[in-house]
Amino acid sequence: MGSVSDLSIMKKAAEIFDEFEIPFEMHALSAHRTPEEVENFAKNAKAKGIEVIIAAAGMAAHLPGVIASMTTLPVIGVPINASLDGLDALLAIVQMPPGIPVATVGINASMNAAILAAQILAVKDEKIREKLAGYKESMKEKIVQANRELASVQYKFKTN
Amino acid sequence: MGSVSDLSIMKKAAEIFDEFEIPFEMHALSAHRTPEEVENFAKNAKAKGIEVIIAAAGMAAHLPGVIASMTTLPVIGVPINASLDGLDALLAIVQMPPGIPVATVGINASMNAAILAAQILAVKDEKIREKLAGYKESMKEKIVQANRELASVQYKFKTN
Amino acid sequence: MGSVSDLSIMKKAAEIFDEFEIPFEMHALSAHRTPEEVENFAKNAKAKGIEVIIAAAGMAAHLPGVIASMTTLPVIGVPINASLDGLDALLAIVQMPPGIPVATVGINASMNAAILAAQILAVKDEKIREKLAGYKESMKEKIVQANRELASVQYKFKTN
Amino acid sequence: MGSVSDLSIMKKAAEIFDEFEIPFEMHALSAHRTPEEVENFAKNAKAKGIEVIIAAAGMAAHLPGVIASMTTLPVIGVPINASLDGLDALLAIVQMPPGIPVATVGINASMNAAILAAQILAVKDEKIREKLAGYKESMKEKIVQANRELASVQYKFKTN
Amino acid sequence: MGSVSDLSIMKKAAEIFDEFEIPFEMHALSAHRTPEEVENFAKNAKAKGIEVIIAAAGMAAHLPGVIASMTTLPVIGVPINASLDGLDALLAIVQMPPGIPVATVGINASMNAAILAAQILAVKDEKIREKLAGYKESMKEKIVQANRELASVQYKFKTN
Amino acid sequence: MGSVSDLSIMKKAAEIFDEFEIPFEMHALSAHRTPEEVENFAKNAKAKGIEVIIAAAGMAAHLPGVIASMTTLPVIGVPINASLDGLDALLAIVQMPPGIPVATVGINASMNAAILAAQILAVKDEKIREKLAGYKESMKEKIVQANRELASVQYKFKTN
Amino acid sequence: MGSVSDLSIMKKAAEIFDEFEIPFEMHALSAHRTPEEVENFAKNAKAKGIEVIIAAAGMAAHLPGVIASMTTLPVIGVPINASLDGLDALLAIVQMPPGIPVATVGINASMNAAILAAQILAVKDEKIREKLAGYKESMKEKIVQANRELASVQYKFKTN
Amino acid sequence: MGSVSDLSIMKKAAEIFDEFEIPFEMHALSAHRTPEEVENFAKNAKAKGIEVIIAAAGMAAHLPGVIASMTTLPVIGVPINASLDGLDALLAIVQMPPGIPVATVGINASMNAAILAAQILAVKDEKIREKLAGYKESMKEKIVQANRELASVQYKFKTN
Repeated sequence: MGSVSDLSIMKKAAEIFDEFEIPFEMHALSAHRTPEEVENFAKNAKAKGIEVIIAAAGMAAHLPGVIASMTTLPVIGVPINASLDGLDALLAIVQMPPGIPVATVGINASMNAAILAAQILAVKDEKIREKLAGYKESMKEKIVQANRELASVQYKFKTN
Repeated sequence: MGSVSDLSIMKKAAEIFDEFEIPFEMHALSAHRTPEEVENFAKNAKAKGIEVIIAAAGMAAHLPGVIASMTTLPVIGVPINASLDGLDALLAIVQMPPGIPVATVGINASMNAAILAAQILAVKDEKIREKLAGYKESMKEKIVQANRELASVQYKFKTN
Repeated sequence: MGSVSDLSIMKKAAEIFDEFEIPFEMHALSAHRTPEEVENFAKNAKAKGIEVIIAAAGMAAHLPGVIASMTTLPVIGVPINASLDGLDALLAIVQMPPGIPVATVGINASMNAAILAAQILAVKDEKIREKLAGYKESMKEKIVQANRELASVQYKFKTN
Repeated sequence: MGSVSDLSIMKKAAEIFDEFEIPFEMHALSAHRTPEEVENFAKNAKAKGIEVIIAAAGMAAHLPGVIASMTTLPVIGVPINASLDGLDALLAIVQMPPGIPVATVGINASMNAAILAAQILAVKDEKIREKLAGYKESMKEKIVQANRELASVQYKFKTN
Repeated sequence: MGSVSDLSIMKKAAEIFDEFEIPFEMHALSAHRTPEEVENFAKNAKAKGIEVIIAAAGMAAHLPGVIASMTTLPVIGVPINASLDGLDALLAIVQMPPGIPVATVGINASMNAAILAAQILAVKDEKIREKLAGYKESMKEKIVQANRELASVQYKFKTN
Repeated sequence: MGSVSDLSIMKKAAEIFDEFEIPFEMHALSAHRTPEEVENFAKNAKAKGIEVIIAAAGMAAHLPGVIASMTTLPVIGVPINASLDGLDALLAIVQMPPGIPVATVGINASMNAAILAAQILAVKDEKIREKLAGYKESMKEKIVQANRELASVQYKFKTN
Repeated sequence: MGSVSDLSIMKKAAEIFDEFEIPFEMHALSAHRTPEEVENFAKNAKAKGIEVIIAAAGMAAHLPGVIASMTTLPVIGVPINASLDGLDALLAIVQMPPGIPVATVGINASMNAAILAAQILAVKDEKIREKLAGYKESMKEKIVQANRELASVQYKFKTN
Repeated sequence: MGSVSDLSIMKKAAEIFDEFEIPFEMHALSAHRTPEEVENFAKNAKAKGIEVIIAAAGMAAHLPGVIASMTTLPVIGVPINASLDGLDALLAIVQMPPGIPVATVGINASMNAAILAAQILAVKDEKIREKLAGYKESMKEKIVQANRELASVQYKFKTN
């Protein structure tokens, strides 16, 4: 993440990784304030055994793109809403030039970033895919249960 | 892709896959006009051996999200500029609810979608990663060469 | 509705239906988390006697469009403001491709969705049209009354 | 429609009505230049046997809302792209105040307006619903056929 | 104004009129809920001696344009921020078709609407113009005074 | 106007003034390139007998606001579409601070600027108001005539 | 600054100048309410020894551009978020016509305005450049320290 | 510049530098494709005698910010319109985090970037300031001349 202040948003990604038992590490690295640290991280990530990178940043959000320029690992970008409802960060992350993609998720969508990372890892790890299938099922169960409860909210002329 | 008219944009993805020797198949499947075909495709994709899905759509672009709702494979979304400069498609693809990510690339960015797919496959295929590294190098070479040519564009007071 | 959290907004629709004595049912169905339930609902709606469907969703709001793709019943879409002031949901609902319309109302405009549903049912039900006419009259009365009260707010140089 | 210049867009609606054998009439009525004619039309529409109204307008598009304020018939609004990519017209049509809905379709989406009108009429006319079902089927067929043709576009490493 | 809820914003206009000793009347008139009252007001305004009309409305703000369509008096439009930061109301008021202008002021800018009305009346009333000149002078004085106070806010290395 | 290149748009205002027999003068004055000329013009306008000012500018359109800051005459602002579809100019003109209104018309709406100027002058000039009434009538006639012609466009199942 | 109410934002600029030991003066000058004072300031700034000007304003933010039109000193513009999330001020400041640039920083970014001013002064003042280098280093240190602390936030499956 | 395709826009900056006799060099350097070259350039710029840097880029425009992160020289950013009317590039350049400003000019405003660079250099170079003053005067002359020509465009009722 580009700033420690993003931790309140990004901790949801950590919780997903814990739930999926996927090892991870978290860093505060600023594309603009610590460019050398970003470079060190990005260039050595693969050698350290990292397989997917999630980068979160707000405003003129360069961190995901800068990391993507220095590695061939898939980089997932999370636009943080720090101004303009997050539209600036979304465009600064998703509109990458040809050749250097960033896999962008929604504004503040740290949880989805972690699930996408899990989906990518599942390409070679059947256990993670099974967990993803279970997760999908449990999401469905929550909505199905909510739907059942909604049915009991009675209105005068409801048909059922 | 959601419509055959998107082929002119999406063929760049096919060219990347050819260049990277990654087998692929192309479909015209509309989330709104052929929902059953989309469902068939999405639910059977993994069993058919598909490992990553790229879905392109314009306007109220539902195709990537609908496919993502029916598979645990990573789904890459390409917003097509069919109206409002593509901003409608971008938001309709990237702003997915918690639990169902779509890895969104830039507007009309079919080439980046293919490179992202290659990066995902490279998680388990070292040959693809090597090709990605070579591709990154050749992109750099083109710019370096362009820079050299630019240096020869002479202006009156240029320092070099 | 796509999520139970939308109930606080959608209950205004229920209140209108109660007021108009139009029977209805409410569901929490997510285009992305419970696609099969959505499909079941949409494909069986007409056979169950449903004549109009209201679908509310936020962000990359696919629910109205997905339902519209699976039925020929009129589908009313309510964009929920969950991010970007609701502009993402509005565009993701209204910008449907040719052939699959969604009758979109304003952001969070659940009340208008219910009135529109009543207007549609009134095409064949004269009693509902009469209630609509009465409702229109009562809206007018409230403004006319407010206007009268405003006239009594005195300012120094007011002409009347 | 608010201006005869909108005819090039709105004729697609006429073609759908012809295809569905739904009788209709077309008017150029401007909310701003011919307010009395709009009032005459809106207030007498039901008595003339009109059951659904489609109103198209661009820029500060008031026509759909003004008509909706004077009738209890369902009013479908078509935002015309005359400036700002049609975003001004979309917002000026869809963001109606509580009590006076306009069933808004996409920018320039005259065809969808006509299909929505058909869906509304189908609430009491089974023949129109059958035509809608046929129409939906034919849309699907076109995509399925396009998909088949796409399969024959060969790329070097395509799997099928 | 389109709704009594706009009074908290529009009362600033009343205060300006009081300060300038310009007689005025206030109405709650909804383009959508009380179209006949709006028509009565707009068509009889000139005969009643009204010389300028200020119309305020939010969302799909039709009131200023509807009044402008029914009178040749100058109509000043005030976009009220009721959704989308007021951008919907601004576009729905300012983007009028050729022939029917609305003199639009900023979002929620009721005070400026009253000053603009005074400027219009000053075309034939020299006393109002003198008050406008005095008002402009007093605005300037406030800033000049603020500037003097700011100069006394001392910082370590300030030059003066 | 801020630049001679705006003449192609602003000449429509001149044509309206000719049609209404309202004397006028045109200037190219740039808020940024000729600030002294703008100041001279704005401060002497009233003494020269000018009663209303129309100022057109694009991009960071300051001309209308700068003139408004230097006169108590009503100033009409025309946002010119020179970038960003004219949204930048619209906001730079309409969002004036309290105390200094600019009567803003639509993007490129030079004709409406002239009609608004005529409406303002009509506050003291009954002849102009009569011309405005005639103009309104002729606009209506054009639409009514267009409507009649539209009725003759025959479609297979049209009712009239 | 255009209004004393901007002081809460602009005081960060003053703090930077104090930290960098750069003498400065602060003024409340409104492009619209005190045009003569703005002109006096802008035209005499260089003679007074001022080398860089920072101008902050909100809404239709004309102050930076108006000053830039009256001096050849570099003018830094700070868009203040007073409406529309500050997008109106940003566009009204940055979209200057050819010939009159304003060096625009981010919305409410008074601190960056001061650092940019320091960078400009450092072109001829090596001591300021040294302070800038020290400042850059200290920013980096804060992030590096934060990164260390983040490493100690333990999650169940973290790798380090 | 981020790509040689930006040369058609950026050559206007070169022409200004030629006109002002300011030595310069041009490079094609991509923040994403040639990060090392960007780093080499940015870190060695000051030692090479470079005093101001102009960086132009489109879409997710990171080049200006990345350079600014690696130098204390003032960096001028030019958003290139490559998509979304250039709004993405503008936000990606101007919305920099605290501590790392980019002096942003308008979309495609290469000429203004060069003039701003000249203004910055003029802080220590009186000759450049004199040329800037001359340039300002010649801009004014062009408008004044245009204004004179406009006066000769005769309309029927023009006063002068």
